[in-house]
Amino acid sequence: MSDNRGIAYKGPGKVEVVDLEFPDFELHDGPGVNPANVGRQLPHAAILKVVTTNICGSDQHMVRGRTTAPEGLILGHEITGEVIEVGPGVEFIQKGDLCSVPFNISCGRCVNCKERKTEICLNVNPDRPGSAYGYVDMGGWVGGQAEYVVVPYADWNLLRFPDRDQAMEKILDLTMLSDIFPTGYHGAVSAGVGPGSTVYIAGAGPVGLAAAVGAQLLGASAVIVGDMNADRLSQAASFGCETIDVSSEDPGQGLARILGHERGVDCGVDAVGFEARGHGHGAAEAPATVLNTLMDITKAGGALGIPGLYVTGDPGGIDEAAKEGSLSLRLGLGWAKSLSFTMGQCPVMKYHRALMAAILADKVQIAQAVQATVISLDDAPAAYAKFDAGAARKYVIDPHGVTGKAQALA
Amino acid sequence: MSDNRGIAYKGPGKVEVVDLEFPDFELHDGPGVNPANVGRQLPHAAILKVVTTNICGSDQHMVRGRTTAPEGLILGHEITGEVIEVGPGVEFIQKGDLCSVPFNISCGRCVNCKERKTEICLNVNPDRPGSAYGYVDMGGWVGGQAEYVVVPYADWNLLRFPDRDQAMEKILDLTMLSDIFPTGYHGAVSAGVGPGSTVYIAGAGPVGLAAAVGAQLLGASAVIVGDMNADRLSQAASFGCETIDVSSEDPGQGLARILGHERGVDCGVDAVGFEARGHGHGAAEAPATVLNTLMDITKAGGALGIPGLYVTGDPGGIDEAAKEGSLSLRLGLGWAKSLSFTMGQCPVMKYHRALMAAILADKVQIAQAVQATVISLDDAPAAYAKFDAGAARKYVIDPHGVTGKAQALA
Amino acid sequence: MSDNRGIAYKGPGKVEVVDLEFPDFELHDGPGVNPANVGRQLPHAAILKVVTTNICGSDQHMVRGRTTAPEGLILGHEITGEVIEVGPGVEFIQKGDLCSVPFNISCGRCVNCKERKTEICLNVNPDRPGSAYGYVDMGGWVGGQAEYVVVPYADWNLLRFPDRDQAMEKILDLTMLSDIFPTGYHGAVSAGVGPGSTVYIAGAGPVGLAAAVGAQLLGASAVIVGDMNADRLSQAASFGCETIDVSSEDPGQGLARILGHERGVDCGVDAVGFEARGHGHGAAEAPATVLNTLMDITKAGGALGIPGLYVTGDPGGIDEAAKEGSLSLRLGLGWAKSLSFTMGQCPVMKYHRALMAAILADKVQIAQAVQATVISLDDAPAAYAKFDAGAARKYVIDPHGVTGKAQALA
Amino acid sequence: MSDNRGIAYKGPGKVEVVDLEFPDFELHDGPGVNPANVGRQLPHAAILKVVTTNICGSDQHMVRGRTTAPEGLILGHEITGEVIEVGPGVEFIQKGDLCSVPFNISCGRCVNCKERKTEICLNVNPDRPGSAYGYVDMGGWVGGQAEYVVVPYADWNLLRFPDRDQAMEKILDLTMLSDIFPTGYHGAVSAGVGPGSTVYIAGAGPVGLAAAVGAQLLGASAVIVGDMNADRLSQAASFGCETIDVSSEDPGQGLARILGHERGVDCGVDAVGFEARGHGHGAAEAPATVLNTLMDITKAGGALGIPGLYVTGDPGGIDEAAKEGSLSLRLGLGWAKSLSFTMGQCPVMKYHRALMAAILADKVQIAQAVQATVISLDDAPAAYAKFDAGAARKYVIDPHGVTGKAQALA
Repeated sequence: MSDNRGIAYKGPGKVEVVDLEFPDFELHDGPGVNPANVGRQLPHAAILKVVTTNICGSDQHMVRGRTTAPEGLILGHEITGEVIEVGPGVEFIQKGDLCSVPFNISCGRCVNCKERKTEICLNVNPDRPGSAYGYVDMGGWVGGQAEYVVVPYADWNLLRFPDRDQAMEKILDLTMLSDIFPTGYHGAVSAGVGPGSTVYIAGAGPVGLAAAVGAQLLGASAVIVGDMNADRLSQAASFGCETIDVSSEDPGQGLARILGHERGVDCGVDAVGFEARGHGHGAAEAPATVLNTLMDITKAGGALGIPGLYVTGDPGGIDEAAKEGSLSLRLGLGWAKSLSFTMGQCPVMKYHRALMAAILADKVQIAQAVQATVISLDDAPAAYAKFDAGAARKYVIDPHGVTGKAQALA
Repeated sequence: MSDNRGIAYKGPGKVEVVDLEFPDFELHDGPGVNPANVGRQLPHAAILKVVTTNICGSDQHMVRGRTTAPEGLILGHEITGEVIEVGPGVEFIQKGDLCSVPFNISCGRCVNCKERKTEICLNVNPDRPGSAYGYVDMGGWVGGQAEYVVVPYADWNLLRFPDRDQAMEKILDLTMLSDIFPTGYHGAVSAGVGPGSTVYIAGAGPVGLAAAVGAQLLGASAVIVGDMNADRLSQAASFGCETIDVSSEDPGQGLARILGHERGVDCGVDAVGFEARGHGHGAAEAPATVLNTLMDITKAGGALGIPGLYVTGDPGGIDEAAKEGSLSLRLGLGWAKSLSFTMGQCPVMKYHRALMAAILADKVQIAQAVQATVISLDDAPAAYAKFDAGAARKYVIDPHGVTGKAQALA
Repeated sequence: MSDNRGIAYKGPGKVEVVDLEFPDFELHDGPGVNPANVGRQLPHAAILKVVTTNICGSDQHMVRGRTTAPEGLILGHEITGEVIEVGPGVEFIQKGDLCSVPFNISCGRCVNCKERKTEICLNVNPDRPGSAYGYVDMGGWVGGQAEYVVVPYADWNLLRFPDRDQAMEKILDLTMLSDIFPTGYHGAVSAGVGPGSTVYIAGAGPVGLAAAVGAQLLGASAVIVGDMNADRLSQAASFGCETIDVSSEDPGQGLARILGHERGVDCGVDAVGFEARGHGHGAAEAPATVLNTLMDITKAGGALGIPGLYVTGDPGGIDEAAKEGSLSLRLGLGWAKSLSFTMGQCPVMKYHRALMAAILADKVQIAQAVQATVISLDDAPAAYAKFDAGAARKYVIDPHGVTGKAQALA
Repeated sequence: MSDNRGIAYKGPGKVEVVDLEFPDFELHDGPGVNPANVGRQLPHAAILKVVTTNICGSDQHMVRGRTTAPEGLILGHEITGEVIEVGPGVEFIQKGDLCSVPFNISCGRCVNCKERKTEICLNVNPDRPGSAYGYVDMGGWVGGQAEYVVVPYADWNLLRFPDRDQAMEKILDLTMLSDIFPTGYHGAVSAGVGPGSTVYIAGAGPVGLAAAVGAQLLGASAVIVGDMNADRLSQAASFGCETIDVSSEDPGQGLARILGHERGVDCGVDAVGFEARGHGHGAAEAPATVLNTLMDITKAGGALGIPGLYVTGDPGGIDEAAKEGSLSLRLGLGWAKSLSFTMGQCPVMKYHRALMAAILADKVQIAQAVQATVISLDDAPAAYAKFDAGAARKYVIDPHGVTGKAQALA
């Protein structure tokens, strides 16, 4: 029996539980590991026993075969865990600390980290700025949908929860700090949401719902969520959002119905990304739809936050342009309306501490908003399939069964 | 003999000096005046004797027939003048004041004006937020390439020069405050330029050169300008910019040559807009070229300032997408690099006072940078033709011959 | 019988209901009117039938004789009303509009107004930048604790409620938009409050409570209010604040008790001002106490928002320094902790629209938080006395009895 | 013969060159070392051969006996040097790198460092947030006015110059990056200086002059410097500043003379600190003078940047209040004018990279502005004396004689 197990991508549509090496203080060769990273020493790392690790919508892009991810890649970048060992270069993080791991891996030494742009750290990915655990083209750091995982630059990356018992009580909320809560919140922040704002969020998946919770925390006066999935829209409605089913209602008309005027919203968030579909029943993939709609329904002078993922290459793109990540955007409209765009991965570290404070003070109920659903590691493949089929849930893997909340998937 | 004369658009490629009504405190019907604006009373207006009024690159879009501008439209939105009469609602501006007129017309009463977004004022253009003098689809305010012009909401819009004599000495610099200096500067500001920045400015026309001057004022350590026009590039080089002739050198290679590394620039400015051409000798129109290049050569985490005009409809567009203002953008690349875009007209009022102070204190030489060239009103049609042919000059019309600097165009 | 009535300051400790001229479009001579303002024409003004007008803590400074306010000055700067007539220079505001009036009077034409610093408008007060209705040394604009009042620069100053019926239902919340809600909120904003922040607010009077509501709207995770008045502290506790009775508990110890650590708070708000008292039972006036305490209990790197009023001259000051508005501050401590201070009147216009949206969307319950208590104009003198005695209420005068909510004061 | 030598404080008015231990990767006990820091292991440190190390005005506070600095304390926090050895935890900095050392020591792991507030790092000084080399109450890190020094958290703290030869050519400019250039610049930034601003800088010592250079780099239209020292004022005038000799001219009158109006300046910088003197010839120490003057002569709505040092305890203070760092400030005036204050040490890391770029691109001549004067280590005691006597110079110690620019002090 192996002393570590995790979830591997095994080709389009296929994930499996596999045996893994127990992590140590070196980045070893393996599927997707950049050669320049092989053998990298990690005296600054901590080894975590994973307490919870969530399945993310961006994992689905790989699993659907929409990326160049190699078979065997260990998935998972949403990690919360307990430190069980630290390297000799770790000074402040200690064994026993219960911590959230930002999905962006960053070094805490480069110019971008110093400017709080940890999502484009220069020292962790030989291919390009920015990295993540268990993700294609991100340097080859082993994914965290596993029993144990190694976290480099632990003193920099880890966010320690101040009280362990309190944290375990709220673990389903805190597990969202590794990615979707900051990511959705970043979308809201970069869309300019503040007290009194009206905001339209395209997409009611976990990131869209997190953006909605974030917008509420920021004081928005109206949070409107659009999607085609009735269950996801119900989920949004359950915590006070207005909803538009874009399979049957034009977003602009929906907004006019809800707001009582046709002036549009102050802020727009794209929580969909490159696999967007056109509006209306049975609409086909149309990658520019969401952004063009947002430019249409956002007021002049507004801003678009774009946490939804757009990629530089998409083997499954609908045409040549899409295959290289090009979109046909109505930029002239955006220009005439003086809009701004903010794109890219969320720099988790910029937000996670404040959001942790909000969770611990009971100001937000993010787990409930996204319907966090705890499962075992063995049920993860089934959860991937359900999530891909549109389940209005956020699956949280509890590899060691320590939350006491795992439910079996039928 | 008429008591006012101005420059009219007379169809593609054609402008003429025509007789005009002397302005009064009402917006009268005429070519391009929105019906809802006809008869609008202007007790808050001032009538100006125009001292200088410049020809703008965006006028050229109309003159080339790339818009739906009607024949007879009086052109001109870059206006500097002396107040000769004020309406009964004017309280602070006085007869005799020498003033700069922001090209954006704004009311100073709506929510956008209150938020300093005067470029999208809600009360001056019945068609959409935002307005300008002498421009298609901007409500029908009469252009200022004329001897006299009316400026509404004068207490709000006009920037008075503190000393008349001093102002007349620097009038060729101050005349740039109505549009291109703030517009270029806004491009630099929204691209994030600050002390020590490196910035690439696409386009060495007057707005690009103004962006370069603005970037220098903001403390940039390297200002690099790209264009295909050798004269315009020489002009950029004359005040300390580095240059790239994109008809013969790839922008990325040019930057590597100049910077000594391949990491790209911190900031990108698009001072070209929708009539962009591809790179290389004799390149055809390719509207997305500039923005795609900027995304390519700007560092991860950088920002793009986009003062270059993109339109919602372009009858002369190269294809159906271009005709509706759509561009095929490599947004996936921009997303991977965490870039941001800031688009739209410059809110002149946000910047003109500070830039006036910089001019009056001799901190910038904007007239020299853009090679301001004074001409008579009668020579304006010839200047339009020369500017369209690529003259590396900024033509400044002096309708009353008061600057003493007009030169005849051969 | 007069056609207008209002509340006049009649010497230390004394206010009376008096007959007044009905307002017109001129600023007439009267108690406290700056000579340079006498006869000022107001074609840009609107005359309002006052719907509600609140008694403010800063009125008390005058009534207590702590200023140079002349007898006969008509009080009141917190005004909400219906437009019954507009001057010839008013274009957008219309008869029948129900509006909030920012307590700062501003012109909407000067450089400070253009920069959103309406609290230091240059054109309304000949003595210094900034003005207000019914206040000493503020130019002499007639106060609004009256049946009718004139509001200059109406298109600029007035905030129209979008729906009249909805507004009348929430009138006790909306009446707080003229001053205390934005003022308290400004304190929270300038103290850096955001999601997850911890904030200590010195003072549980109406401004302190408004700061607390504002901090909650901004997402603070802990809002702690200190005062010596048990009723006011109960009021703070009623909507979820933590409280410290500084007459019996040291603020630092109180914070440690509440937060569970001694690191202090992220943000500090001074909602007391120059009439501060020392801590402990029966403490004497000690004007620097609040600021010194805030420097002590705010974390290094934090910020202090200082909406509490400090004055340039105080005839009743405890010593010569206090009489000229000097305080003995532990600035060395503030320096060592890298603190920042933001002082001054709140620029109401920067915030009131967003806060109106929050009220109309039921995101905040400001009237309930400050215990809004409606009274008749005739009961205003009694309310002044009760407020001065420490009543944990915000008195709202309803001069025409249109809210249907007035209660008699025993 | 010792293998290291440095400058020690030997009691009021006295500094000496002493023999020192060669640094290693541990913080050893010694004068002023906090017991909690004794024996601290520094695997993350680098050992530098000091190339240049400057004498700072804040060193003078200690040398004058105005602090509790113990005898034997090794001075010096302005360090530039070559890395000669790195600890096992250093990954990116390499032997041979020529680097600037921010005077603030910071860990790069705590919440404040992550928020760019390196001046209040939580992990380096057991007494309070924030630390520095060779300074009283700062944890006991050994000063850098020495031949060799150890720099902890080297990957985080050190700024590597991109080209060694280029750096040595500009070493007298680059040596100012460790403290005074960022510190002065921070004063200008936090005073709100930008293009077109007018700024008054109190104090023409090195920090004041650096603030002036910073203000010019930021685009200020008028930079006015006040002092009582004619040589220092000449120095300011030498690079384009206007000057006021406050020993003979009232600052307000001087500004009116220079600006041509009495409206004051937009921005104020306090580059003096707690040892301020009153204005006029032979004025006595008056610690609140500078701040009260700045509040007086800065426009309403302006900001004060306060890089000048104020302390929490001053054994030599003029009275009991001064001894505990209290000042009698006209806060009422500041409040009436809506001013803001920004206090504290400069977070050098936030600025040094941009300023390095400006130096390397020849945009600023900071060495010339402050009259950098290179001396040997042995001449440092004489330089301390001359600097204290008011020499308008910035003394740069070259302990190994590698700049080739050292001059003997007569």
